[in-house]
Amino acid sequence: MDIMEKALAAHHEWHGKLDIRSKVAIKDRDSLSVAYTPGVARPCLEIEKDNALSYDLTGRANLVAVITDGTAVLGLGDIGPLAAMPVMEGKCALFIEFGGVSAIPLCVNTKDPDEFCKTVANIAGSFGGINLEDISAPRCFEIEKKLKTMVDIPVFHDDQHGTAVVASAAIINAAKLAGKELSELKTVINGAGAAGVAIANMLLTLGIKDITMINSKGIVCDGDKLSSEALADLAKRTNLAHKHGTLADAMQGADVFIGVSKPNLVTPEMVKSMNAKPFIFAMANPTPEIMPDLAKEAGAFVVGTGRSDFPNQINNVLAFPGIFKGALAVRASDITEGMKRAAAFALANAVKPEDLSPDCVIPNPFDPTVAESVANAVMQAAIEDGVARVKPQ
Amino acid sequence: MDIMEKALAAHHEWHGKLDIRSKVAIKDRDSLSVAYTPGVARPCLEIEKDNALSYDLTGRANLVAVITDGTAVLGLGDIGPLAAMPVMEGKCALFIEFGGVSAIPLCVNTKDPDEFCKTVANIAGSFGGINLEDISAPRCFEIEKKLKTMVDIPVFHDDQHGTAVVASAAIINAAKLAGKELSELKTVINGAGAAGVAIANMLLTLGIKDITMINSKGIVCDGDKLSSEALADLAKRTNLAHKHGTLADAMQGADVFIGVSKPNLVTPEMVKSMNAKPFIFAMANPTPEIMPDLAKEAGAFVVGTGRSDFPNQINNVLAFPGIFKGALAVRASDITEGMKRAAAFALANAVKPEDLSPDCVIPNPFDPTVAESVANAVMQAAIEDGVARVKPQ
Repeated sequence: MDIMEKALAAHHEWHGKLDIRSKVAIKDRDSLSVAYTPGVARPCLEIEKDNALSYDLTGRANLVAVITDGTAVLGLGDIGPLAAMPVMEGKCALFIEFGGVSAIPLCVNTKDPDEFCKTVANIAGSFGGINLEDISAPRCFEIEKKLKTMVDIPVFHDDQHGTAVVASAAIINAAKLAGKELSELKTVINGAGAAGVAIANMLLTLGIKDITMINSKGIVCDGDKLSSEALADLAKRTNLAHKHGTLADAMQGADVFIGVSKPNLVTPEMVKSMNAKPFIFAMANPTPEIMPDLAKEAGAFVVGTGRSDFPNQINNVLAFPGIFKGALAVRASDITEGMKRAAAFALANAVKPEDLSPDCVIPNPFDPTVAESVANAVMQAAIEDGVARVKPQ
Repeated sequence: MDIMEKALAAHHEWHGKLDIRSKVAIKDRDSLSVAYTPGVARPCLEIEKDNALSYDLTGRANLVAVITDGTAVLGLGDIGPLAAMPVMEGKCALFIEFGGVSAIPLCVNTKDPDEFCKTVANIAGSFGGINLEDISAPRCFEIEKKLKTMVDIPVFHDDQHGTAVVASAAIINAAKLAGKELSELKTVINGAGAAGVAIANMLLTLGIKDITMINSKGIVCDGDKLSSEALADLAKRTNLAHKHGTLADAMQGADVFIGVSKPNLVTPEMVKSMNAKPFIFAMANPTPEIMPDLAKEAGAFVVGTGRSDFPNQINNVLAFPGIFKGALAVRASDITEGMKRAAAFALANAVKPEDLSPDCVIPNPFDPTVAESVANAVMQAAIEDGVARVKPQ
């Protein structure tokens, strides 16, 4: 049975991938009166006096909601909120298994960004953090930006920032191995959607100065008619030479290619036209922008993809469990640029020096120590950035 | 340590009463590819083709959301959404422990009924049913009525209907013991809020014809300026003699007193003025409208309260776990009057004939067989009422 049929059969058997249990056995009058009436009135009144105590007296301190509108699910597109739920449940399972963070899946049945934000903001007091998932660009930019202003808990669109953090970590280690400075890396990003825009923004905060974005029309220039405010803003801070042209033009002399776009767009000739020791992160799923063997043959120094059957898998599961674990541990009110940067460096440093090589610039997704390392770095950054509301317990 | 302090300490220790686990251990590439990418795409696409498959391929078939706005929490009043959450978590624990039904707690931060409904309707695809909880009257009537039209899953305001079902069951058995016909029971309901209105409506569907509602101004008459549309509607179908007067006036010659109001409003003289073998259900918490010993001395045949330290505890936990268990088992689109009535009779019949006595007209809340009996009756009624979408598995 192939993997897709195996997954379908498993989902039929599971009837949902999460199991919600009561921590309290309620079997008699005493247990009922402590967990429920009349005793429960006491913690309620404590929270009424001081809302911050909701973090002590309910489960929200370690609870993330994984929320989608179903408009950009995996590579499947706008399949709707109900159809997106198996992914959301899976994401919750990853939060639990990799980060020890509780999570519940929710789908929102609206495509209106304002209504989406209002809906999620109205229920935000039920959670400690919000992981947005599989929301189409450009709506995802507007939704995340607006929602962050409406709630006092972290909001994190993983398709943007999770990908950006993991890709950044890989670039940090690749640069170390190649003996290149981050500030000197001429970088091309093919794909100007959620992930592409977030990666570009993150690389800019890491000190990478020369970034060229490519969308379906070619090199993105300031002043072009662009698909989102977020991209228009980015266009002002990238391609400073204001070049026009194709992907092939952009790749000439570049140090880094990052693909979050479509299969097989990159040719060996393009790789050959790059600077010495180029890095190729071809993350289109399931078929990368160029296959790793082809890229290597054409001279790539480091190659990464989204796939688990090649080296250097750029997998978000390396980031989001630890990022939320760290943010929740200090009851952060936000996930800042500093926290994401700290996560990227912690992830880069999670590769042991003796393991670091062109085929190992990023930890294995199943390395059980990663989430803890990322969490510790994120906690520290939250404290430094002034968004921590308590000290780590 | 008294029960309130014990409950506070326990809540500090628990950090939330629910434990969310993954059914799937995700420890390697194979398990990841079945529970998450790429395999998860397969169940997603199945649901896209047929939305009804969301009941098979996600957890919603056995998942209830327990949702509040925090406006009428226990007897504490409008303490706000965050402060209500310990109660919602407790309710979820009861769903799990008593009904084997999964449940998640949500609070909604708005007092606007339309916005509340819009918020809940937008996320309804995440669940199989919605239990509304601790929402103030008269808003609760409008919210429940409107929400039912907006979603295709059961919506049930437990403070209304749970109480009505359990009180009805107690009255059914009390009438049996007293040799009275339901249709002949002259009934007085003191308290015209959520529970009082729901009880009156339910008793009317059971065939009780002579019902008098009392609010803070006295006997409710059709044409009075009343607090809710729901009560105004009820006023047309109760107090058909259009009497005015006080609680004491209403109780003269009555067979049943139902109190969902305030402590100590009922005097022994009022009980003495009732018909032979009167039933007193004095459910004000924690102090009943009249203490059971006083009522008994004054001639009450059956006395019930909301308290666990007296006989005949009218406790909602007898109803909601089984009602949702039954509704979910057939993927009901609604909880109908017929399903509630079936629940009340099943609950009445759950008292074994040999146990039935004036001090035992309702099962013990910890009787582990009750939820199953209620669920079976509710399933049947859902099928008869045409709201079942599948046969019981």
